[in-house]
Parts: sequence; structure tokens; C-alpha cells
Amino acid sequence: MTADEGGLPDIRRDVPTAIHVQISEHIRLRIASGEWPAHYRLKSEPELAQEFGVSRGTVRRALATLIEEGLLRQVRGRGTFVTSTVIEPAIAQKLSTLSEDFASQGVVTSTEVRECSLITPPRPVAALLDLASGDTRVLRLVRVRSTTEGPVALLFNFVRTDLAPGIEQADFAGSSLFGVLEGSYGLKIATARRTFSAEAASPDVAEALALAPGSPVQYLQQVTYLADGRPVEYSDVWIHSGRLRVTSLLLRR
Amino acid sequence: MTADEGGLPDIRRDVPTAIHVQISEHIRLRIASGEWPAHYRLKSEPELAQEFGVSRGTVRRALATLIEEGLLRQVRGRGTFVTSTVIEPAIAQKLSTLSEDFASQGVVTSTEVRECSLITPPRPVAALLDLASGDTRVLRLVRVRSTTEGPVALLFNFVRTDLAPGIEQADFAGSSLFGVLEGSYGLKIATARRTFSAEAASPDVAEALALAPGSPVQYLQQVTYLADGRPVEYSDVWIHSGRLRVTSLLLRR
Repeated sequence: MTADEGGLPDIRRDVPTAIHVQISEHIRLRIASGEWPAHYRLKSEPELAQEFGVSRGTVRRALATLIEEGLLRQVRGRGTFVTSTVIEPAIAQKLSTLSEDFASQGVVTSTEVRECSLITPPRPVAALLDLASGDTRVLRLVRVRSTTEGPVALLFNFVRTDLAPGIEQADFAGSSLFGVLEGSYGLKIATARRTFSAEAASPDVAEALALAPGSPVQYLQQVTYLADGRPVEYSDVWIHSGRLRVTSLLLRR
Repeated sequence: MTADEGGLPDIRRDVPTAIHVQISEHIRLRIASGEWPAHYRLKSEPELAQEFGVSRGTVRRALATLIEEGLLRQVRGRGTFVTSTVIEPAIAQKLSTLSEDFASQGVVTSTEVRECSLITPPRPVAALLDLASGDTRVLRLVRVRSTTEGPVALLFNFVRTDLAPGIEQADFAGSSLFGVLEGSYGLKIATARRTFSAEAASPDVAEALALAPGSPVQYLQQVTYLADGRPVEYSDVWIHSGRLRVTSLLLRR
């Protein structure tokens, strides 16, 4: 069987390239071609050893190289999987924030605070925050979160300042919004409604995410509630789908 | 306070229009303008009665009209809310299918089966379904789901036929895929990975969803696993974001 037919290639013992290097290169090509997509589970080490006609130790050495490169990852008790090239936060499944999810996945991000000021909220935002329009000011926080790949999300948050007076003085480059609300103000964030849709990037959104205007972007709208039922925060979040995919691991029952 | 300033208007008693009709029309305009957005919780009936300067019974009659029109809905113990104009399935939060979610929300949909045939799976699909490529055929099921508004989702499912032999003869216009797998084949669907991203509609996707090519569409990729860990189904789903928003109601802890 040749590689063209989807099988495993012969390992060549008449070339100076070490066998484990040939195997890791073979797997690298399978991943690069998309034939082994993100989340594909490789066969077990004994099965791979048999198919390649090599020892299990040689297979293990080839896999170790690819794990170190970040192309594969091993999950205890489940096997070896092809790594996703995009960040996959579980923000549709858990009320964690992007920054919390990044931290738990070991993704290093930076935050640029573009605006942190008190404003009169737009009427629909005032309504969802249970504020009489016209007479209350809210914090408007605009941030861009980036990884080493570039910007991944543009976040607009509107926060009730009657519940968090002085919040406009917090350092949002270094601390998260939920962290400040829970840590500095002792607020009990309890629930949120999040809706997800695909939208065309406005010029402003496109600029912030380094996309062409009109590009499809993942839009997330959120209203966050305290334990006593009062809404505390509304947000519009624009996500670069090429760098971040909202992912849920779900159970049937 | 005038309506322009965001307050409630005076009720006119010198016109022939009944007062409850004036109130329902006032609320209808607030909703149409977006000032009271989807999921906005109205003040309580006694509060509204006081603000309008009318009896509670009059307020209740005005709200009943709008509930009957579908613009408002009452949730026991929580209040009266502005209804969303889009369908909001919880498919990022629960392993329910669109058809199950539609049924539980009382949304009437129709299904057009565009293809139901046995094919050789594309290689990445074969990999995710743990099939050796080239020697296995899978069911390819292509469906368009529509509401009275028009098409809401285009679904491509790839199903392992070794786990469900003869499945290509099932009636997918009348029964759901999970229903057939669980009901007719006794398979135990246990888990799924779902990823969500925004993509530009290809000409085919655009045609099926009655959108312009290149329009942003919500893309959902899914792999479904049985209780024993074997993958049974892979799908690509394209969702019309103007008609359906993936929604999660989340708890912080």
C-alpha cells in the first residue's frame, strides 16, 4: 500500500535518516495535508509499531518529537491526538471568561485596554442592565486580547457602576473584569446568557482583529447576573474565528 | 417626561382609543425601536400601573395582547420578558439536536432531504470516524431545515454504516438522525465535541440558506461518540444567523 492510498509508507533502512525521524516526518505530512485533522486519535503505539514494522520504542520516540513540537498531545487513558491549531475555549458551556479559559489552557495572551471610561449607556444596554436611561452612567471597557498569532477578540463591556463604584480606576491590562467584580467588589456573579452568531466585521471590528472589513466574525453577546438576579454587566465580543473556535464537549444525558 | 427622553408617555383619555390599546401600542413601539431588546425584563405590573397612571387590570390587559402576539412572554416567578425574534437553541450547552431543541421550544420546522446515499468518506472524515480510508462506505445525509421564515440550517452528516447497517433506507424527512441511531439501532450516543465558528457562505451553502454568497454563516462541526468511545457520526452544519442564535444559559459555579 502506498501513501497515496492512505496507508503507511515503507520505512527505508538504506538511507542515513534515522527511522524515528522518518516516522515523525510521515506523521507531520499527514497532519499538514489535513488527512489527520485536529482531534484525530492516532492508533495505539503497538498498532503503529506493527504497521510501520518498527519497535514500539521507535514509535514512542517519533511521537515524543511531535508532542514536543505541539502537533500531538497525549491524554492519559484516552490516547494520542492531533492538536488543534486554534484556541478552543469552552465559553458556550461554562461561565468562564476568555482570560480564565486561556489561563487554564496555558495560552499566553496580552490585553490592550483601548477605553475605560464612564458613559451614558445606549438605551438597549440600559434596558438589559435594568437602568432607567438617561440618569445613570456605566463603565465602558474596550479591550483587545491577543496571542502571539495576533488579535483574537475585541471586547466591549458595559458595567453598572452603582454596583461597583470607582471601577473605572481598576487596572484592566493586568486583571480580568470578573476578577475585579468578584475580588475587589465582593459581587457574586451567578449566571449569564450568552448568544453566538456569525456577523460581518464592521470597519472598526476588522481593524481591531486585523481582518478585512466584511470578514465573517464570531459575535458573542452576553448579559451577566448576580446571585440576587440583578444584571451587572452587558458585553459585545467579536472573535477571530481563524484563531479561536468556541468548543463544547457535551454529554448526552 | 416625554417618550423622547426614555420615559413613559402620558395616556390620553380624550381620544376614542381604549387605554389598554394605547399602552400595548406604546410597548410595541419600544420593542420595535430596539429600546426594549430581546430578553429585556419589563417592570412589574404594579410598577407599570403606577407609571402609566392606570389600574393594574388595564396593564394586564395590554400585556395579554402582546403575549398573544408573541412579542412578550411571561416566565413564572421571573417576570415578563421581550421575546427574541430568532430561535435560540441550547446546542452549545446540551447534546440535544436542532430537531429536539425545536420540538421542546414549540418551533415548527420542516426537513428537506437533499441526499441520503452511501459514499466513500473524505479522508479527514474517515480519520475522525476511526475508519481506514478507502475500504469503508458511510451514509452521507444532506438536509435543509426550515421554519415558516425560511431555511435555518444546512446539515451534512456522515454516519458509520458498520454501526448502523441499512440506515440509508431510513425516512429522514420524518425522523431525526439521533432518533434513528438510538431508536432503530439501539446505539448509546454518549458524548460529542462541537466547535463553533463564523465562516463565509460558499455558493452552495448560500443557495441552501437563501443568503448571498460570502455572507457570514455560523458553522458547527461535530463528532459524536458512543458510550464505548467509538465515533459514530461526523457533521458539518451551516446555520443562518439571522434566524437562529446559539444560546447558553450558564451558571458561574
